Order: sequence, then C-alpha cells, then structure tokens
Amino acid sequence: MNGDEDQIRALIAAWADATRVGDLAAILNLMTDDVVFLTPGNAPMRRKDFIGAFKSLAGSVEIDGRSNIQEITVTGDVAVCWNLIEVKITPQEGGTTVKRAGNTLTVLRRDSDGKWRIWRDANMLAPA
Amino acid sequence: MNGDEDQIRALIAAWADATRVGDLAAILNLMTDDVVFLTPGNAPMRRKDFIGAFKSLAGSVEIDGRSNIQEITVTGDVAVCWNLIEVKITPQEGGTTVKRAGNTLTVLRRDSDGKWRIWRDANMLAPA
Repeated sequence: MNGDEDQIRALIAAWADATRVGDLAAILNLMTDDVVFLTPGNAPMRRKDFIGAFKSLAGSVEIDGRSNIQEITVTGDVAVCWNLIEVKITPQEGGTTVKRAGNTLTVLRRDSDGKWRIWRDANMLAPA
Repeated sequence: MNGDEDQIRALIAAWADATRVGDLAAILNLMTDDVVFLTPGNAPMRRKDFIGAFKSLAGSVEIDGRSNIQEITVTGDVAVCWNLIEVKITPQEGGTTVKRAGNTLTVLRRDSDGKWRIWRDANMLAPA
C-alpha cells in the first residue's frame, strides 16, 4: 500500500510542478481519458474542456500551488485523496496575486498501464 | 453490483427524506462514525459538527432536496457517487426560499454491518 501512496503523492507533486511551468502534455498524462473535474458554480469539466481552459490561460498567468495532503486511502485500483490546497495566481505582466485555498476530494484510478491517474476531482477552493 | 447501486440510491433517497422531516437519528445512521463533509469556504465538518449544525437549524428551516444521480461506481467496499443536487431552503415562519444547486462527489463505504454509509462528501452547491 505504501508504494501506491507514494506514487499518488508523486503524482500530486508532478501536477503542481507541471502547472507551474505550463506543461500541458505532462498534466494530461496524470488524468484518465474520462476524467471529470467538478467545481462550485460551473458545469462539469472533462478532458477536452480542461485542455481548452488551460490553453486560454497559458502564458497569461503564473499558478503556484501548495498541497497539504490530509489523507490517501487506497482500495484495490481506486484511491481517494483529501487534500488542502493553497494556490497563488499572478498575471504574467504583473498585477495583483489572487489567493485561493480549500479542500479537494479526488478519486484516482490505477490505469491499464499500472499508473495512477486522476479520475474524479471535486475542487472546493475559495478566495482566501 | 446492481444490488449495491440500488442500496446506495435508496440511501440517497432516505437522506433527502430524513432531511425533509428533520430526523437526525435516521441521517446519522447513513454516515460512518468517521465521516467528513467538505464544502467551499468552511472547515471540514465531522459527525459531531454535523449534529451541531443540524440542531441549530432544526425547526427553523424546511429543506427540500432533489437528486439527479450522475454516476455510481462500486469497487469492493468503496463506492463513488457523483450527484447533481437542487435544494430549496425555506424558513418555517415563511419568507424567501433560497435555492442552491450543484454537484456533489461522495465516497461511501460498506460498513462492518454490511450497510453502505457516507464516508467522505464534497459538496459544491452554490446559489442558483
């Protein structure tokens, strides 16, 4: 079980790193093909919606996220991760940094290649 | 698997019914002892926090919720439910009904007595 938990912690760190440097291909490799991202006040976002949103932000903002993982529970090929995240979003051309913080509840699946990937994600970040 | 999914659908219906009539004991029987409820902008709510919040609202509001279950996925003793919920909250003494709607992502566990119960819940309802 520790091996799975370590892999999931590495995935979360890799996600934050790839977001910071704007590496869309790396991020896409960390989610399943049928991923769904849920947030308050928005329609569910699927893989292609994520790509569109990412590209629309690319180059215009710097996103610096910090994780404080509360819990990872692995059951077979499914894992549940409760995380407490702080994100700073800063316009590339300068300007006010926006801070958001809050809990996320993420369900990961062990994919057919043996790698864990994000499958369902509930993001409850709010202005902080 | 269908048996599990039916039990989880019945649990969600029972939760809404018990909320409507203010039956705290019935609701508590639908969550695990170590349940955690996550919402935007609030601290995580555990069982005792839920009891406090429920009692503070009891008799003062009528809560009418409708579920539109998007997906239930059962893996062993863990189930993941994505739900789209609409809630109407009306003061008992009359007044404006507040509507909230949005997605929830809930992880349920099959407890030691064989019954499914809510274990982790991400509630992304927003004003609607």
